[in-house]
Amino acid sequence: MTTREPIRLAMVGGGPGAFIGPVHRMAAELDGRMRLVAGAFSRDPAKSAAAAQAWGVRGYADWSEMIAAEAAREDGAQAVAVVTPNHLHLAVSRAALQAGLHVMSDKPATRDLAEAHELATVVAASGRLYGLTYTYTGYPMVRDAREIVRRGDLGAVRKIVVEYPQGWLSRPIEREGAKQAEWRVDPALAGAGCIGDIGVHAFNLAEFVGGVRVERLCADVSTVVPGRMLDDDCNVLLRFKGGARGVLIASQISAGARNGLKLQVYGEKGGLTWSHDRPAELTIDWLDGPSQTLHAASSYLSGPAQVASRLPTGHPEGFIEAFANLYRDFAEAIAEGRADAGLVPDIAEGVRSMAFVETAVAASGQGWVALNGSPA
Amino acid sequence: MTTREPIRLAMVGGGPGAFIGPVHRMAAELDGRMRLVAGAFSRDPAKSAAAAQAWGVRGYADWSEMIAAEAAREDGAQAVAVVTPNHLHLAVSRAALQAGLHVMSDKPATRDLAEAHELATVVAASGRLYGLTYTYTGYPMVRDAREIVRRGDLGAVRKIVVEYPQGWLSRPIEREGAKQAEWRVDPALAGAGCIGDIGVHAFNLAEFVGGVRVERLCADVSTVVPGRMLDDDCNVLLRFKGGARGVLIASQISAGARNGLKLQVYGEKGGLTWSHDRPAELTIDWLDGPSQTLHAASSYLSGPAQVASRLPTGHPEGFIEAFANLYRDFAEAIAEGRADAGLVPDIAEGVRSMAFVETAVAASGQGWVALNGSPA
Amino acid sequence: MTTREPIRLAMVGGGPGAFIGPVHRMAAELDGRMRLVAGAFSRDPAKSAAAAQAWGVRGYADWSEMIAAEAAREDGAQAVAVVTPNHLHLAVSRAALQAGLHVMSDKPATRDLAEAHELATVVAASGRLYGLTYTYTGYPMVRDAREIVRRGDLGAVRKIVVEYPQGWLSRPIEREGAKQAEWRVDPALAGAGCIGDIGVHAFNLAEFVGGVRVERLCADVSTVVPGRMLDDDCNVLLRFKGGARGVLIASQISAGARNGLKLQVYGEKGGLTWSHDRPAELTIDWLDGPSQTLHAASSYLSGPAQVASRLPTGHPEGFIEAFANLYRDFAEAIAEGRADAGLVPDIAEGVRSMAFVETAVAASGQGWVALNGSPA
Amino acid sequence: MTTREPIRLAMVGGGPGAFIGPVHRMAAELDGRMRLVAGAFSRDPAKSAAAAQAWGVRGYADWSEMIAAEAAREDGAQAVAVVTPNHLHLAVSRAALQAGLHVMSDKPATRDLAEAHELATVVAASGRLYGLTYTYTGYPMVRDAREIVRRGDLGAVRKIVVEYPQGWLSRPIEREGAKQAEWRVDPALAGAGCIGDIGVHAFNLAEFVGGVRVERLCADVSTVVPGRMLDDDCNVLLRFKGGARGVLIASQISAGARNGLKLQVYGEKGGLTWSHDRPAELTIDWLDGPSQTLHAASSYLSGPAQVASRLPTGHPEGFIEAFANLYRDFAEAIAEGRADAGLVPDIAEGVRSMAFVETAVAASGQGWVALNGSPA
Repeated sequence: MTTREPIRLAMVGGGPGAFIGPVHRMAAELDGRMRLVAGAFSRDPAKSAAAAQAWGVRGYADWSEMIAAEAAREDGAQAVAVVTPNHLHLAVSRAALQAGLHVMSDKPATRDLAEAHELATVVAASGRLYGLTYTYTGYPMVRDAREIVRRGDLGAVRKIVVEYPQGWLSRPIEREGAKQAEWRVDPALAGAGCIGDIGVHAFNLAEFVGGVRVERLCADVSTVVPGRMLDDDCNVLLRFKGGARGVLIASQISAGARNGLKLQVYGEKGGLTWSHDRPAELTIDWLDGPSQTLHAASSYLSGPAQVASRLPTGHPEGFIEAFANLYRDFAEAIAEGRADAGLVPDIAEGVRSMAFVETAVAASGQGWVALNGSPA
Repeated sequence: MTTREPIRLAMVGGGPGAFIGPVHRMAAELDGRMRLVAGAFSRDPAKSAAAAQAWGVRGYADWSEMIAAEAAREDGAQAVAVVTPNHLHLAVSRAALQAGLHVMSDKPATRDLAEAHELATVVAASGRLYGLTYTYTGYPMVRDAREIVRRGDLGAVRKIVVEYPQGWLSRPIEREGAKQAEWRVDPALAGAGCIGDIGVHAFNLAEFVGGVRVERLCADVSTVVPGRMLDDDCNVLLRFKGGARGVLIASQISAGARNGLKLQVYGEKGGLTWSHDRPAELTIDWLDGPSQTLHAASSYLSGPAQVASRLPTGHPEGFIEAFANLYRDFAEAIAEGRADAGLVPDIAEGVRSMAFVETAVAASGQGWVALNGSPA
Repeated sequence: MTTREPIRLAMVGGGPGAFIGPVHRMAAELDGRMRLVAGAFSRDPAKSAAAAQAWGVRGYADWSEMIAAEAAREDGAQAVAVVTPNHLHLAVSRAALQAGLHVMSDKPATRDLAEAHELATVVAASGRLYGLTYTYTGYPMVRDAREIVRRGDLGAVRKIVVEYPQGWLSRPIEREGAKQAEWRVDPALAGAGCIGDIGVHAFNLAEFVGGVRVERLCADVSTVVPGRMLDDDCNVLLRFKGGARGVLIASQISAGARNGLKLQVYGEKGGLTWSHDRPAELTIDWLDGPSQTLHAASSYLSGPAQVASRLPTGHPEGFIEAFANLYRDFAEAIAEGRADAGLVPDIAEGVRSMAFVETAVAASGQGWVALNGSPA
Repeated sequence: MTTREPIRLAMVGGGPGAFIGPVHRMAAELDGRMRLVAGAFSRDPAKSAAAAQAWGVRGYADWSEMIAAEAAREDGAQAVAVVTPNHLHLAVSRAALQAGLHVMSDKPATRDLAEAHELATVVAASGRLYGLTYTYTGYPMVRDAREIVRRGDLGAVRKIVVEYPQGWLSRPIEREGAKQAEWRVDPALAGAGCIGDIGVHAFNLAEFVGGVRVERLCADVSTVVPGRMLDDDCNVLLRFKGGARGVLIASQISAGARNGLKLQVYGEKGGLTWSHDRPAELTIDWLDGPSQTLHAASSYLSGPAQVASRLPTGHPEGFIEAFANLYRDFAEAIAEGRADAGLVPDIAEGVRSMAFVETAVAASGQGWVALNGSPA
C-alpha cells in the first residue's frame, strides 16, 4: 500500500447523457490513484453545474476557463480527461498541455490526421504526458497476448485477423434522438464514422499485440444505412512490415452484434485468440500440442498481465477495470515524473490510427495503398 | 443525475493482504453514492494507519473505538462495512447497529446459527439497515433470472442444481503462509469451512433465483485435504418447499476450478442457466422452441436487471460492479430512509444460510433432515 | 487395409419407429467390419418383413426362430444385436449365447439385478462375447480421459461429478402416443425409469473414466410428472472405494435439456471435463498452469483415443461414430477369437449398473447404503 | 421405411492413404440408399485390388476400363464417385457421364475454369445427374440457415463474413512425405492451392446460405511458406449483387486452427452465425431481442433441416452424416429419375467456384475486379 495523494483530474465533456464520461470517472478513481476535482461537463452551463454538484466537484461553464482556473490553483487539477466529441479533442488537449496539465484523451486522438500531427507537435513541446484510452490495451489478457508474441512463443507472426462488429447503428437511430449516435455520424463533429469510432480500436489492438506495423492496405469503407453521411461498415486487407498479412473488419451495421472485438494472431507455431466476449481468457492453439486457455489473475501469466488484475482468478473484471488500468498506469507515470506512461497508448499511436483512418477512407475501393496515403 | 451527498462509510477489517476489503471500498465508491471516510483496517495499529493514509481516510487502531468516535462526529460514518473474519461479524455488527450505524457485512452473517439469531434480534431492535454481501445477487442477469422465475415464464420450478467449485485449497496452503487460507480453515475464526465460505453463496443464490425455500436436505460434508480441521468439499441433496428437488455442490478442492458458480433452474416449460464464467449472459433452454441467450444491458430485460448495468451491452461488467450494485441499493435505501434495502440480502437470509450450514454439517452422512436440524 | 470378411450380424428389435435400431445398423456397418444379414425387427410379422426388405436382409417373425435358423446356416449370423425393450434383454441374449452367437446388447443389461446375475452366468458358460453399448465409452475423448486418469496425470482422484440432464419426458408424452416414451415408463417393460435408462450411462461413465468403483450411495430417486409409475429424476451422492466423493445427476424432466451428459473428474493436480455437447474436446484445468483443451484426432492423444477417430482433427464425428467404435472393437475381438472385447463394456459392467439401479431405487430417501443394497 | 434397392456406386480414387475416399464410402452407404460395388482406387493395380478386396467390391486397375465395364454390366454401377486429385476430375467425370453414369464429384469441380465450362457442357448433354460434395451444405443447421435467410427473417442481407482457417500446411510437410499435402501444393495436380482446396467451400457456403451472388472482389492470395508453388493463404473482399459487402478468409497456414469454417450473415434485423466447431447449433443475434440458438433435430426447424438429421436432438451428427445427406439426396434423385438433386450443389456451382478461384488468383493484389475476371 502506497501513501501517495491521488492525482487531481478535471474532465471536459462527459455530462448528462454521455456514456463514456462516467466510465472515465469510475476508471480514474477506481484504484484511488486519481480523483476527479473539476469539470466542464457540458456546453450547457446548467447541465455542467448539475453534473459537478452530483459528483461533488468544481463545475465550469467553459472548458478553456476551467483549464486556466485549475492550472492557477494550488490544489488544481494536474491532468485533464478529454471526453468530448472528436472535433474538440485537439483544441482541448492543446490548451491543457500548454497550461502545463497532462492529458488523457478518449479516442480517436483528433478529428483528422492533420490535427493529429499538430497535436503531436504540441505534446512534444509541452513536456507533459499524453495518453489515449484505447481501452482494450488495458485488459490483462491483451497485455499477456502482447508478451507472448514479444517473447516469440508463436514464432514469426504471419497473419492477423481483427474483427470489431457492432450492430447498434443498423437503423438510422441518429434521426430518432439517440445522442450517442447523433454526433458520431456527423462529419463536422466526428470526422470519420465507424472506422474512426471503432476501426481505430481494432487497428491499434492488432499492432499492440501483433508487434508489427501496418504498411499497406486495401479498404472497402462503406455507408450501408441510406442517408448516413459517414461510413458504418469497413473491411480492410492489411500487409504488415515484414510480410505478415491481415484482415480488419469493423462494422456498426452488423445487426445483433454487441461489442464483439476479437483478435487472432497466427505465428509459425500457433495462433492466439482474444475476444471481448470472454475478456479474462486467452486461447492459444498450437500446431503441435493441446490448445491452452490462460485465465486472468493466474500466477503463470506475464508481469504486465498480472499487475493488471485486482481480484483472484475467476472473479471477472471488465471494461471499467481495463479502463482503470490505463488510468492507474497514467497516474503512476505522473506521480513518478516519468517521460512516458508505459503501456498507455501515446500520441504516436494516435497519429498512426488517424493515418489509418484517412488512408482507408481516401483509398476505399481503389486497391492497395501505402499507409501514408501514397500508392503502394 | 442526482445531487445527493454520498453516504459516509467506515470499514472494519480489509487492510493490507486482504482480498475483500479493497473490493468493498471500490464497490462502495464506484457510483459515487458512498464514500469511505474511516477504517479500523487491521488489529495492527501501524497497518491500520498505513491503510488509512493510503486511502486518505481516518484510521483507528480499534474498531469499537472507531464506532464510538464516528457515531459521535457530525460528519462521521453513517454505515459500517464489516470485512473481518467471521468470528467478529456479530460483535462488530452489533456494536455498529447499537451505535445507530447501518451495517453492510461480508458473508456469512456470523460464525454460527446461534450468533445469527442473536444478530437478527439486534437488527430488529436497532431500526437500522443490515445488508449481507451475497455478491452474486448483484449481477444483472441473476436479477433477471429471478424475475423470469417470478413471472412464471418457466412454469412451476421442479429442479435446481447449483454448483460452486473452487480449487485453491487443493493443497494445504494454509500451512504455507497463505493469509486468505489461514483463517478460513480455522474453526475458531471461520466457524465452518467450504460450506460456510462458498456453500452459503450457492444456497442463497438457489433460493434468490428459484423463489423456493429449502425444506429438507441430505448432506455429505467432507474434509479431503489431510490434517485440515474444517470441511473443504460439500455435496448436498435438497428438497424445496412445494416439492422441487435440488443438488448443491460446493468445493474448494476441485483442483483447477477457479470460481465457477453455476445455477440451473428447471421449470415445467424450460430451464435457465447462469454461470459466473459468463456473468453477462443468461441462457434459457425451452422445451418447445429455440434456446435463448439474454445479454446484460439489453432493453428487453426486466427492470431490476436493467438498472444493474452501467455500460452499453457488450461492455463487460464484473465482480466489482455486481458488488457495487449491492452498495448502491444500500446507499439509496439509507438516503431515502427506507426500512429495507430491496434486493440486498438481509439478516433473515443470513439466518437461513447459517441454518443451512449448521444443519448440513451436523447431519452429514446421516440421511435426510429438516433444514432446522430436526429429523425430516 | 485388412481383407477380413465382415462379421455377420442379426438384430432383434429396432424396427419401424425405433430410434436405436437404425443406430445399431449404421454403427455396425460403418467401418465395413460387420454386416447386417438378418433380423426379427418387430413382434408384428409384417413390420419385421418390411424392415428386412428395406435393409435387404433376411427377415423373421420371431426372434427365437431367427436365432435357431441363423445358428444353423453356414452363412448365418455370427452375432446378435439386442435392441428390444429391457424386459427381453435376458431372454434374447441367453438364447443367442446358448446358440453359440455373440451378443451386443443395448443398455441396460437386463430389467433387474437378478436377471443381470443370471445373464452373467450364461455369458460365462457360453464362451461367447457379450458387449453392452454404453455408447459414451466409444468417444475418443472419453477414452483419452480414461487414459489421462490411469496415467496419473491428475494425481489421485478426489471427486467425480456426472450429470445427465434430459428434458423430453417433462410432459406425460407417454399418454400422447410417443412410442419411445411408452415402454420406458412401463415397469413391466423397462424395469426402472430414468435411472435405468440414462442413470446407468452416467454411472458407467464415471467408473470408466474415473477408474474407481462406487462403494456407497445416498439417493433421491423421484417421479416428478404426476401419474408416471417409474422415476424420472435422480440425484445421488456417491462414495468411491479409496475415498473419492461424487455426485450423479440424471433427469428426464430437466425441461429444455437435450442430451447433455457431462463428466468432471478432479484429482489432486487438476480436473478434467468432458461434455457430450462438444464431444471432440476434452478440457483439463490444472491447479498450477494454463487450462488445456485436447482435440480428437490429434497426434498428441493416447493410443486408444487416436484409433477411435476416422477423420482429421476438426472434422466432427458424433454419436454414430462413437457407437461404431464399440462395434468395431467387438468385430475385431470376434474375428481374432479373443476372450474379451477390450474397452467394450461387458456383462460385469452390466451387473454393476443394475446393482446401482436397484440399490438407488430401493434406498431412495433413506440415507447411505452400500452399493449391494445392504446398509453401509 | 422404403424398400428401394440401393443405388450402385463405383469409386475412382480413394485408395490406401486417402482421407476422403473412405468418407465417400461411409457417407454413401450410411443410410442404405447406396452401395459401393466397384472401384479403381489407385493407379497402382495392387493397391486398387487390395482396397477392393478389403471392401468386398469389384476392383479395377484403370478407371476408364472400370467405367466401360460397369456401364456394360446388368448389375453394374449406376453412379461414379470421383475422389481423385483435381487434375483428373474432368476426364473421369466426362467419361462416366458419357457412359450414362451419374457423377458425384469431390470439390473443386475441375482443375481450372476452362475445364469447368467444358464439364458443364458435358453434363448438360448427358442427361445424367452431377453432384459436387460441398460437404458443409449437407449440415442440417446450414440448411436451416439458408431457409431463415430465404424466408426473410433477417431482412435484406447486408454483410457476409466467412472464415475458413486451417493450420496443417504451416510447415512444408509436402516435403516430408505427407501424401495429403503433396498433391495439394502441386500446380499440375491441384490447379490452385488453398483457395481451390477450401476457399471454394467458403465461397459456396456464403452464396448457399446468403442467397446472394458475388459480383466483384478484391483479393490477397499469397504463398506464405517459402518454396511452395501454390497459395496457402487468401483474404478476399467481396461485393454481392444487390449491394451486400463481404469478407472471405481461407488459410492453411493459420497455425493451430483445425478446420474452423465459420459463416456470419448479417441482415437488417439480425445476424446468424454457424460454425463448424459446433455444427449442430445455429445462433441468431437479433437487433431487438434475445439471441437464439437453434439445435439440430428440433421440431421447430425448417423442413430441409429436419430431414437432414437421423438422431434425436442432443445426439451429435458430424461430417460423415453431413456428407451422407448429400449422397442420400443424390440417391433419391437418381431413384426417382429427377432432373436435379435438390440441395446438392451442381455443375453450375462448380463453374462459379472455379470462376472465383481464377478471378481471385489472377487479380490478387491488383484491386477490384468483376467475378468473371474483367475489371469491375
